Amino acid sequence: MISPRRLLPILEWLPNYHRADLRGDLTAGLTTAVMLVPQGMAYAMLAGLPPIVGLYASVVPQLVYAAFGTSRQLAVGPVAMDSLMVAAAVGAISTPGSEQYVMLAVVLGLLVGLVQVAMGVLRLGFLVNFLSRPVISGFTSAAALIIGFSQLKYMLGFDIARSKHVHVILLEALRRIDETHLMTLLIGVVSIVAMRIIKRRSPRLPGALVVVVASTLAVWAGDLAGRGVAIVGAVPAGLPSPVFVPIDAQMVVALGPAAVAIALVAFMEAISVANTFANRHRYEVDANQELLALGLANVAGAVFRGYPVTGGFSRTAVNGQAGAKTPLAAVITAVAVALTLLFLTPLFYYLPNAVLAAIIFTAVFGLIDVRHARHLWRTKKDDFFVLALTFVATLSVGIGPGILTGVGASLAWFIVKSTRPHTAVLGHLPGTTSYRNVENYPEARTVVGALILRMDAQFYFGNVSFLKERLRTLVDGDETLRVVILDCSGINQLDSSAAEALHGILHDLRERGHRFVLSNVKRPVRDVLDKTGFVDALGPTNIALTVHHAVQGLREEGVLDADEAPAATSG
Amino acid sequence: MISPRRLLPILEWLPNYHRADLRGDLTAGLTTAVMLVPQGMAYAMLAGLPPIVGLYASVVPQLVYAAFGTSRQLAVGPVAMDSLMVAAAVGAISTPGSEQYVMLAVVLGLLVGLVQVAMGVLRLGFLVNFLSRPVISGFTSAAALIIGFSQLKYMLGFDIARSKHVHVILLEALRRIDETHLMTLLIGVVSIVAMRIIKRRSPRLPGALVVVVASTLAVWAGDLAGRGVAIVGAVPAGLPSPVFVPIDAQMVVALGPAAVAIALVAFMEAISVANTFANRHRYEVDANQELLALGLANVAGAVFRGYPVTGGFSRTAVNGQAGAKTPLAAVITAVAVALTLLFLTPLFYYLPNAVLAAIIFTAVFGLIDVRHARHLWRTKKDDFFVLALTFVATLSVGIGPGILTGVGASLAWFIVKSTRPHTAVLGHLPGTTSYRNVENYPEARTVVGALILRMDAQFYFGNVSFLKERLRTLVDGDETLRVVILDCSGINQLDSSAAEALHGILHDLRERGHRFVLSNVKRPVRDVLDKTGFVDALGPTNIALTVHHAVQGLREEGVLDADEAPAATSG
Repeated sequence: MISPRRLLPILEWLPNYHRADLRGDLTAGLTTAVMLVPQGMAYAMLAGLPPIVGLYASVVPQLVYAAFGTSRQLAVGPVAMDSLMVAAAVGAISTPGSEQYVMLAVVLGLLVGLVQVAMGVLRLGFLVNFLSRPVISGFTSAAALIIGFSQLKYMLGFDIARSKHVHVILLEALRRIDETHLMTLLIGVVSIVAMRIIKRRSPRLPGALVVVVASTLAVWAGDLAGRGVAIVGAVPAGLPSPVFVPIDAQMVVALGPAAVAIALVAFMEAISVANTFANRHRYEVDANQELLALGLANVAGAVFRGYPVTGGFSRTAVNGQAGAKTPLAAVITAVAVALTLLFLTPLFYYLPNAVLAAIIFTAVFGLIDVRHARHLWRTKKDDFFVLALTFVATLSVGIGPGILTGVGASLAWFIVKSTRPHTAVLGHLPGTTSYRNVENYPEARTVVGALILRMDAQFYFGNVSFLKERLRTLVDGDETLRVVILDCSGINQLDSSAAEALHGILHDLRERGHRFVLSNVKRPVRDVLDKTGFVDALGPTNIALTVHHAVQGLREEGVLDADEAPAATSG
Repeated sequence: MISPRRLLPILEWLPNYHRADLRGDLTAGLTTAVMLVPQGMAYAMLAGLPPIVGLYASVVPQLVYAAFGTSRQLAVGPVAMDSLMVAAAVGAISTPGSEQYVMLAVVLGLLVGLVQVAMGVLRLGFLVNFLSRPVISGFTSAAALIIGFSQLKYMLGFDIARSKHVHVILLEALRRIDETHLMTLLIGVVSIVAMRIIKRRSPRLPGALVVVVASTLAVWAGDLAGRGVAIVGAVPAGLPSPVFVPIDAQMVVALGPAAVAIALVAFMEAISVANTFANRHRYEVDANQELLALGLANVAGAVFRGYPVTGGFSRTAVNGQAGAKTPLAAVITAVAVALTLLFLTPLFYYLPNAVLAAIIFTAVFGLIDVRHARHLWRTKKDDFFVLALTFVATLSVGIGPGILTGVGASLAWFIVKSTRPHTAVLGHLPGTTSYRNVENYPEARTVVGALILRMDAQFYFGNVSFLKERLRTLVDGDETLRVVILDCSGINQLDSSAAEALHGILHDLRERGHRFVLSNVKRPVRDVLDKTGFVDALGPTNIALTVHHAVQGLREEGVLDADEAPAATSG
């Protein structure tokens, strides 16, 4: 039975609210709102939607998340990655700007929410473990490039056909570079430069809001719209009224795969940033409860005319740094956006599109992570290749297939590595009871007449033939051999194929007249060996506590003498 | 540079042929031929092909394999599993009995051969490692059922529509049971019983040949064909002449997936039986060379009007037991079949189809392996479930998807297990320098002020969050804690995500005022920790040789005192 407090964390934090937290929550909530209003409008535009949809998506989902979520700092709302994926999915079956397009984006939000709720109920939160850091890094950098270039048309002031291929957009832009609207470009570039300077000089100042206000004033005062600068135009006032989301089987088929992809990517972004802040503030987030909370936020968002949302990196960082202590900060943000919707929308009339594009540019280019790639190249080449593959796949086949390629490649690599595990021939360290890898310890001495092999991996069907071949190669080369000792200290698990392989190895070694001894057998491995009858076949006395005990025992039996020789390490 | 002897093993074994081996090879070759002739015809019928195609497929492929193969006992030719897969693939796009059907089966053989050659050249032989014993067992049992029931129509003497669903065939057979041709059923049942008795009483007698001869004589003498017993009829005489295999893009698209599936399944069957005999006779088979040899055998087989072949379980067993020492046995078998084709085909005229069906029945029902399933149920439940899933999937969705489901499920299970690895809290065994799992060693005593945790798995992105959470749970509950010692003896590999996680753990523990120490760090792990700067961050003195050294060092520093307490083992 799940307690109501577990299901609805607000029942825990709201009654126990400390007045001391109010100041931080209030500051953080308002600061985040100031950032969220222009970002929400910009990301809606990135998704191919009217800016107002971004504001709608910033109210109700935050309130729902505040009730169900387990993170205290997570700022839920429109984010760049999801917006781009919405544009790709809905753009494939409808025309941006049409009413149908807006409606399909709302349906997609509902589907994303339902997928997340289902995943939460089925406790599939662990799936996010399979998104390794190299995959996330490669994927994010590529997505940032795609997002950035999709905004080029607003910066240059002429229409470039949508494409998921960065180079297509770039070539088109270069070919028609003389169509550039210089005033628009100037506004965009100045906005970017201004935000960078503000961020460096006065990090507490809301840079996005400053350029929004300044550019709106400039366009109004200078009648720049009359001179061809594209502006946001009329934004309807008022809170979103609930709609009945019209959903049918055809839409589910058309948008289903994208909904699953967005649900996963959105969850991944939210859970990683939520974990970061939970670590910093010493509390726990529950992955499955987070899925439920984000899912319900999306469902509620769809009912109130929003589009898919999640907890984003940048606004959560701002929220946390501004002092958010409880989800009340998010409630305050939502109320502030609601007030904006009620009273301030007319002020956005003269806001240039190029400024919204500049805000997106600034947000996403920070996500391109060259340093991590360089770090992996130096420290762990295989992880670097996973990163590079994910990056290239995302750029060339798109966001959803790109991340799947990355996850598939990293898991495949994990499996392939497990089929050729590390093994070590052990030698005795003189004067001790320790046996170590002769390739790493030149002073180690081999026990004459014995082959001591350690396998450093889970022993399972995937590497059964590898171990058999490795043993065969080592045994074939050795005329003086009497005993094979398999040190199992690195073997944590044994499946039935591996147990059977041990039977086969025992049989082969006995046919050659060799003794077979195991050492350092862990409990779970021993259990399987007992049940499959291997211990009986081997003889329980041939299972030694350690390699040292094994060698001692064999010497006492006279199977081995005391001879030891310098190890001839193989190339 | 690959040596010609490596590529063409016949250059090795033929010039060095010992006359002493000739007797065994001759007996084995002829015995296998006696078995192969009726089996080849029966399996061709199973594939929906005229019986003669099974004989064609038994000549040239064996000669090619004898030149290129590395197994000395493998008997290459038509087998039940492949034949069934051919029937499924070609039957989906053509009508059994038509000339087009035969032609498409030949094309499929060519494609299978090309896929195998390509896999051999690309050295993909290791892929067969992913077919675990439970998957093979579940798959084989299900395939045996499907094959067996597909022969029911020949046994009952009335036509039942082909279906890949066993229950559909069974229901249809029961519904029309009154149409049974009793004489046909009698011949079939008597043949099965006779073969069983011969196998038990006189295992050296070729049971299949006995029933073939006896039933042919009976049908001829009693004019049973005139009374409605279906017979093989006219079989054309003469060796197969080479054909130009007509292949086009459309066929490649239609048959490609089946060709890949058959190439893999056929290779799996051949390599597992080849390995068994190589072990028994102390030599090596080379998986990639086997792919090449089987691939070339299939290509050559297609040119000479055959259909897909491989090295089968049963005939290889007969060949080996009858004394085959070199591939010369296979050459003798091929020559014997060729002589049959030239001179003996008229003798098959009166052979009843029901006898061929009985031969298939007898061959495949031995493959249903209930004992292995029961063994797994007792010893390793998770492997049992993989077997059961593969069995059910093969029966319900077919041969190809069934085996893929099994492989996918066993790999997924391997990965899922790796995300929740075994960890152990260690305690000191009094009077020794050993530290063992407190849950398995009740006498172990915990070191007061220290948490000693051993992780028994490869540490990688998939279980990063598991270890973090496990540590957090253990650390949170302990007020007296001063030091966390992570014993890395079970960690064989470290990826960049895991290295980063260690940085995070170090940071968290320091924030709480705890010391962090590693012990038993293996060389590959240490290398990654060095390169990523973790060793510098931790301080090299916090990496100890063993847990014992770590505890000793901390006691000398005064961080720990000498107190030890009985371990309170958690439920």
